[in-house]
Amino acid sequence: MGSVRDFRPVFLVIGILLITLSLAMMVPAIADRIAGNPDWQVFLAAAVFSLFLGGCLTLVSRTSDTRISVRQAFVLTTFSWIIIPAFAALPFVFGDLGLSYADAYFEAMSGLTTTGSTVISDLDNAPPGILLWRSLLQWMGGIGIIVTAIAILPVLQVGGMQLFRTESSDQSEKVLPRAAALAGAIFMVYFGLTIVNGIAYWIAGMTPFQSICHAMTTISTGGFSTLDGSIGHFDNAGIEGIATVFMILGSLPFVLYLQAVRGGFRALLRDTQVRWFLGIALCVVLALTGWLWSDGGEAPGHALRMATFNAISVMTGTGYSSADFNTWGSFALPIFTLLMFIGGCTGATTGGIKIFRIQVLYATARVQMLKLIQPHGVFTLKFNRRPIPDSVPASVMGFFFLFVLSFGVVAMALSAMGLDYVTSISGAATAIANVGPGLGDIIGPSGNFQALPEAAKWVLSFAMLIGRLELFTALVLLVPAFWRD
Amino acid sequence: MGSVRDFRPVFLVIGILLITLSLAMMVPAIADRIAGNPDWQVFLAAAVFSLFLGGCLTLVSRTSDTRISVRQAFVLTTFSWIIIPAFAALPFVFGDLGLSYADAYFEAMSGLTTTGSTVISDLDNAPPGILLWRSLLQWMGGIGIIVTAIAILPVLQVGGMQLFRTESSDQSEKVLPRAAALAGAIFMVYFGLTIVNGIAYWIAGMTPFQSICHAMTTISTGGFSTLDGSIGHFDNAGIEGIATVFMILGSLPFVLYLQAVRGGFRALLRDTQVRWFLGIALCVVLALTGWLWSDGGEAPGHALRMATFNAISVMTGTGYSSADFNTWGSFALPIFTLLMFIGGCTGATTGGIKIFRIQVLYATARVQMLKLIQPHGVFTLKFNRRPIPDSVPASVMGFFFLFVLSFGVVAMALSAMGLDYVTSISGAATAIANVGPGLGDIIGPSGNFQALPEAAKWVLSFAMLIGRLELFTALVLLVPAFWRD
Repeated sequence: MGSVRDFRPVFLVIGILLITLSLAMMVPAIADRIAGNPDWQVFLAAAVFSLFLGGCLTLVSRTSDTRISVRQAFVLTTFSWIIIPAFAALPFVFGDLGLSYADAYFEAMSGLTTTGSTVISDLDNAPPGILLWRSLLQWMGGIGIIVTAIAILPVLQVGGMQLFRTESSDQSEKVLPRAAALAGAIFMVYFGLTIVNGIAYWIAGMTPFQSICHAMTTISTGGFSTLDGSIGHFDNAGIEGIATVFMILGSLPFVLYLQAVRGGFRALLRDTQVRWFLGIALCVVLALTGWLWSDGGEAPGHALRMATFNAISVMTGTGYSSADFNTWGSFALPIFTLLMFIGGCTGATTGGIKIFRIQVLYATARVQMLKLIQPHGVFTLKFNRRPIPDSVPASVMGFFFLFVLSFGVVAMALSAMGLDYVTSISGAATAIANVGPGLGDIIGPSGNFQALPEAAKWVLSFAMLIGRLELFTALVLLVPAFWRD
Repeated sequence: MGSVRDFRPVFLVIGILLITLSLAMMVPAIADRIAGNPDWQVFLAAAVFSLFLGGCLTLVSRTSDTRISVRQAFVLTTFSWIIIPAFAALPFVFGDLGLSYADAYFEAMSGLTTTGSTVISDLDNAPPGILLWRSLLQWMGGIGIIVTAIAILPVLQVGGMQLFRTESSDQSEKVLPRAAALAGAIFMVYFGLTIVNGIAYWIAGMTPFQSICHAMTTISTGGFSTLDGSIGHFDNAGIEGIATVFMILGSLPFVLYLQAVRGGFRALLRDTQVRWFLGIALCVVLALTGWLWSDGGEAPGHALRMATFNAISVMTGTGYSSADFNTWGSFALPIFTLLMFIGGCTGATTGGIKIFRIQVLYATARVQMLKLIQPHGVFTLKFNRRPIPDSVPASVMGFFFLFVLSFGVVAMALSAMGLDYVTSISGAATAIANVGPGLGDIIGPSGNFQALPEAAKWVLSFAMLIGRLELFTALVLLVPAFWRD
């Protein structure tokens, strides 16, 4: 088992991922070739370049010892999510979009982390290859984070994820084989849901191309659209309903689907994380509907439709919009900020603090209250009707503190670059929670991130990265002691 | 030892506090009588009313058993801080200020919790009695919270305060005798600091009346001023310097002063909470100075003076202002929001999350990081070079979660009443952290809370109350199980 400074297994995996990426680049290349758009050469060149480098990395990093240590797994996970976007950005730079490398890296990071913030303003006239590439990035990023969250993070024990260690997982060096075994089953579910979603979109009125692209960015709760008007462009209640259902499906723990296939769908609704998620979503939708109805003067039915779609879109971290919720008045903005923070379930494609952590925090605060009333009482913290292991509350607490701290630091960095209060705060929140749009005129649902200074784009790219990797996974690499043997 | 539903000891203490309050009302009555202002009758009437009711409560609640249970201590503490402002508000209602009862209660709560938010707009022309009364409320509230935090909260074990239990404190029924013993010594220090502060202000150029009033609201980190322009009215670097020193002195743990008197001032600087407080303050002042210099184009000296005074004022929860920091550009607002949250040390007059909790949270996050690197390592959480008791981290975690949650709920309630994003968020923060001014045009340093709807004033009064009592002390009364025997 290797030292933390033995980078061979890390480079080996990154090499394999680069080769996969180069194969994925052939899809938009073919699409642009069919559409007669010269961009196909850009994709081909980027694919060849990535294939060459990936191949080299794979060859020079071959090692007889494929087992990796826990620390190497940290390096592997973080470096993969830093380096892959660097290559995925190439088609954005060399295409006709006029993007700088900071723009392109931001767009690629936003795609692969399934955030959905964009710097591209004229999507309606963008070539099909670019649109397909953005959707593909989110789709690949979505399955990537599910596998990471199910197979790797519980073993790394970051931020309370040890709650989701299964019987077969342990702290030993079995990280990669286990990932491969689970990835196959999860991938089938993910792939199947995407197909169903795409067909539903097509029946509801999208073109086949739009159906494919949107299905990939819905199930991954990514939120990139092929249209400047996002889902609102269609003004179609059916499409919004389909999107809502599949955004929710993308936010529930994917392992539960495997259990559901085996043991019936009851298991899904017995899970307390799922119940809390749906309960919170319901409360927020009702509150927003009431607000839009009473304050905004909307008809109740339309208010419900607007509230449901946009609240679910933000809470699941998708980031589609069917309306500019900036204009929904004073009550909506804090609600949307809160939804960004909460996020969905773990082991899915959503970001944010995540429901299970809110549950652990709530359980801790509740037990604290009861202890004040009965100082000598014995109270057990429970999650899903089982006692929570001792190490989890402190781990979740560390995560929560680090989340608030990172949010504060990023917001302050953005404001130091001259961005206003709402843009700084919502920009930091939307990036760390991997949501997509922010609030306010600049980065709100009807704006985009193009106008921000280059430095802000790098800061936000970093925020998306650490948010996606549950903070600890990436930030631990900044601790000097990590690199000592 | 009494049942939680035996209110006699509670009413006995509240009766005594009301009698004390009625005596305090005689001070502004005399001041107004000397100044020839008819308001003296209002103060006299309020004093007589409070004396009568306080006397009645004391007489009917006499009980041979003066020992109280821990749960009765919760009721006693919370009810005192709810009922005393209700009487302290009387002079505001019946004076010439034209305030509603919601306004008056808000002002009294803001005074007694040493928050310093105000609904009175024309201070420059207000009668001396009212000005003196506002200052007295903060001064009394300041010593009240110090005694509560040192003698009562550690026994109640709220939000990690058990970290400050001394050898002689235990969970038994000795709450009141111990409070009385400590209160005397602490009161002498508090009184002495106020005198020194007042004399310093007088030498620096304030009138005797201004010196007395400002000394009382500086050491209590309350922030009520006798002038619409607050401390900025004087435009006097000496006065700002004196205020800065005494705001800091009001934010350090008062027990350390007792130790310092006995064992030299080294003890004060050896305390890690004091070091962190001064360290954070220094970082923020330097960052703000740099910002005002580079972005605002201020001369370095003036930038340093403005940054120091206003940052210390907000961080200590005082709320004086020497400039409208709303106009300091994008970087200042998030900094001031953060400072509100952090607050000062415990066992002092400041609010917010407080430094020791930030230290515990940081220590927890740090140990989490180290555990990721060395899963089998043994790490001890320390505070002030001593191991932290096992119950503290969870207790602090519960507090932090409840703080963020209360902040979110209050901010959302305010926004549902139609207040804008900055006003809702900074209003919730400034109330829960007992700071004073908010941000934005309405409740910022150059505005006041008069324009808010009545309902918002009640919500903010509630927020000031729970913030002052470290959340748990007040919120536990809302748990039904609390009232069962």
